[in-house]
Amino acid sequence: MKVLVLNAGSSSIKFQLFEIAGWSVVASGSISRIGEDDALLNFRWVDGKGQSQQLDQHHPIASHQAALERVVAQLRTTGALADLTELHAVGHRVVHGGEAFHVPTLLDEDVIDAIRQMIPLAPLHNPAHLDGILVARELFPGVPQVAVFDTAFHQTMPRTAYRYAIPDALYREHQVRRYGFHGTSHAYVGKRAAAMLGRSFDRSNLITLHLGNGASATAIRNGSSVDTSMGMTPLEGLVMGTRCGDIDPAVLLYLMQHLEMDHQQIDQLLNRQSGLLGLCGVNDMREIHRRIETGDAKAELALGIFCHRLKKYIGAYMAVLGDVHAVVFTGGIGENDAETRTRTCAGLERMGIELDEAANYAETRSERMISAADSPVKVLVIPTNEELEIAQQTVEAVG
Amino acid sequence: MKVLVLNAGSSSIKFQLFEIAGWSVVASGSISRIGEDDALLNFRWVDGKGQSQQLDQHHPIASHQAALERVVAQLRTTGALADLTELHAVGHRVVHGGEAFHVPTLLDEDVIDAIRQMIPLAPLHNPAHLDGILVARELFPGVPQVAVFDTAFHQTMPRTAYRYAIPDALYREHQVRRYGFHGTSHAYVGKRAAAMLGRSFDRSNLITLHLGNGASATAIRNGSSVDTSMGMTPLEGLVMGTRCGDIDPAVLLYLMQHLEMDHQQIDQLLNRQSGLLGLCGVNDMREIHRRIETGDAKAELALGIFCHRLKKYIGAYMAVLGDVHAVVFTGGIGENDAETRTRTCAGLERMGIELDEAANYAETRSERMISAADSPVKVLVIPTNEELEIAQQTVEAVG
Repeated sequence: MKVLVLNAGSSSIKFQLFEIAGWSVVASGSISRIGEDDALLNFRWVDGKGQSQQLDQHHPIASHQAALERVVAQLRTTGALADLTELHAVGHRVVHGGEAFHVPTLLDEDVIDAIRQMIPLAPLHNPAHLDGILVARELFPGVPQVAVFDTAFHQTMPRTAYRYAIPDALYREHQVRRYGFHGTSHAYVGKRAAAMLGRSFDRSNLITLHLGNGASATAIRNGSSVDTSMGMTPLEGLVMGTRCGDIDPAVLLYLMQHLEMDHQQIDQLLNRQSGLLGLCGVNDMREIHRRIETGDAKAELALGIFCHRLKKYIGAYMAVLGDVHAVVFTGGIGENDAETRTRTCAGLERMGIELDEAANYAETRSERMISAADSPVKVLVIPTNEELEIAQQTVEAVG
Repeated sequence: MKVLVLNAGSSSIKFQLFEIAGWSVVASGSISRIGEDDALLNFRWVDGKGQSQQLDQHHPIASHQAALERVVAQLRTTGALADLTELHAVGHRVVHGGEAFHVPTLLDEDVIDAIRQMIPLAPLHNPAHLDGILVARELFPGVPQVAVFDTAFHQTMPRTAYRYAIPDALYREHQVRRYGFHGTSHAYVGKRAAAMLGRSFDRSNLITLHLGNGASATAIRNGSSVDTSMGMTPLEGLVMGTRCGDIDPAVLLYLMQHLEMDHQQIDQLLNRQSGLLGLCGVNDMREIHRRIETGDAKAELALGIFCHRLKKYIGAYMAVLGDVHAVVFTGGIGENDAETRTRTCAGLERMGIELDEAANYAETRSERMISAADSPVKVLVIPTNEELEIAQQTVEAVG
C-alpha cells in the first residue's frame, strides 16, 4: 500500500508517493507555474527494474485540477501507482491550522470549513491548500485524506510564549497570537536528534534550527515545542531569504506615514523584498558566499546579520529551556552551509556549545554530530524530510 | 558652581539642579500639564539650614516658556540658584540623536537643526526637547547648553546588530535602523556595576536591564553597547507598561487590512494601549502583584509574559557576549520588584546565573549584589540616576 503526500501552493503542486512498507519513495516531483502556458511537470520515479527515471515536460496546465490529473496519469503510466486501490491515504500539507488543530486530522466537511475560516491568518497558503484538497477528494474518492498542519507541533507552547503584549481582545476576538510554522520539520529532526542521542524524544530538550528560504528556530522541552521564532505568520523571527524577520513594529508606521505605503506594498516589501535579498540583492546563500569571496561588503553584512540573529535565538532558547541536550541544524542552509554554522556557534563555548570544525566541514549529507567530543551541548546536522513525516503522520491518523 | 538638568516633554518639564562640587541635588521637581488650567508645579529644595522643603502649586501655565520662567523664579526665591552667574551649564535630555551624535554635544544652531531634522524618527519627543532648548537659551543667555542623547551610548553597536533585514535603501535614504534608547541609564548603571565588581568599565561585559514604564536590555562588551532591545523607536523589544515590544510585523498588516486601522490608530494601540496595560488592564507592576494575589489570571499572564521575554533577552545577550561578568537590574521594576527578578532568573543556573534569594528580597534601596556567592555571573541591583549622568556628561562636554 502507498501514501501520497501533496503540498499545494498558489501556482504549484509538489508530491511524493511512498511505499508504506519500508517508506521508500516510489515517485516524486512537482508541477509549477500552474495557470501559465509553460507550466513545468517534473516527475521522478523508480521503474520496474529499480532504476531512477526522470521526466521534465513543459505544456499549458490551466488549473490545480488539471495539474493533479496530469500527476495521476503519470503515476499510472509509469506504474508507480498502477491502480488507485493501492492508495491507502493522501496527506496534505496545510500551513495554518490556527488553534483548532493540534494533530494531523482526517479531512471532512467540518475540517475543510475550519481551514477556510483560517484564510485571514494565512491568505497566501490556505486557499491553495484548499484547492489541492478539493481536487484530491474528487480524484481519489473513498481514499482517506489527512491534513497535516505546519502549526500543529507548536500548539503545546505555553501562553507566556504564544501571547503578544497587545490588548486581550485582539487575541480573543481575532486570534492574534504566535502560532509558529515548520512544525513538521522541527518535529521530524527533533525525533531524529533524540534517536541519535540515544534518548527518548519526550525526555529531550532541543533547539532546532530550520534554515531554508524560510527560517525558524524552535525550543523543544521533553519532546514538545515550548517556543518558536515565527509568529502569527511566517514573517517574524530569523532573517530569511526574502523576509525581514524581527523588526521594530514602528518601522511599519514609518512606512505608512512617511512613504505612504499601503498594507499590500508593505506586505510585498517585508515578505518578498527583504531578508538576505533586501540586504545584498540575492537570497541564495551559496551565491552570497561566492560574493563574499570577491569582497562584496553587502553580502558579508547579510551573512553577518543572519548569523547574529540566529545566535541570539540560540541563547534565548537556552535561557527558556535551562538545560539543552542538542542544537540541531536543518534545511538547505542548515544542512549544507558549514560557515554559517561556524559563525553562529562562535563564542558560545561558555554556554556549552563547541564545534568540531573538521566534522563541521566534512563533505557528507547524512545525519551527523559536529560538536567537539566534550561539548556539553551536542550540535547535530540532520537533513529534514517533511514529506516523510507527513506520510507517516497521515498513516497514523488513518489508523 | 551648579548645573541644571532639563527633560522637556510635550506637556511637562522635569528639572534637577546639582552642586558640581560633590554632586549634591540642590533642587528638583517638575511642571506637568503645561497648557492646561491646573498645571502642577512640584518643587523640592534644600533650604539655608540644610532642611528638605517641598512645594506643590496648581495654577495655569500656558507654555514651556512660562513653565521654565516659573522654575527659574522659584530657584531664585528659594536661594537654590540665587544668581544666574552660579549656573555653569544646562544639560538637556534629548531622546533621539540619530547617527549624528555619539557623545554629549554643546548646543549651537547646527546641533539644533540636526535635532529638528530627526523629528520623523522621534515625533513625540524631539519637538518637545527643542521647545525646552530654545526657551532655556533665551532664559540663560551665555550659559553653555549641552544635549545628552538617549541614543548616543548605543552608537558603538556593530552593523550586524543595528541593521534590519530590509532593503538597503531604507537605511541609506531613510535612516531606518536600530538606534536604541535609555543609553544614559545603561551607561550609568554599567559604570556603577563595573565599580562594584572592582573592574574597569572598559573591561566589563554586562547585561543591563532598565525596567521602568519603558523597558530595554543592553549588551555591553568592554564598556561599549554592542546590542540593545529597543529599535528605531522605543517600541521594539521587551514588554513595557503600555508598549507591545516585539511582535510579528504581520500583525500590523492584519490590523490595517482586517480592522482598517490607520497609522495613528495603530501607533496609539501599540504604544499606549498594549504591554502590561493591554494584557491585564493596568501597567503598574505593584498593582499587578496585588491582583495576582487575588487570583487574577490576566495579571498573572501579564507578569509571566514580561518575565519570559526578559529571560529570552538575557539568554540572547549572553550568546552575543560569550562571557558575562554581571546582569544588572535597574529602573522602577528592576530596582524594586524582587519577584520579577526571581522569575526572570529562574532556570538560568546552567548559564551561570544563580540568585541569593535572601539578598534578592532584602529591604534596601541601595546598590547591591543579589547573586549567590558562587554564581559565575553576578547579579546586581543598581538604582539608576539619569539626571546625575546627564549632569556629569554636561560638565564634561563643557570642559
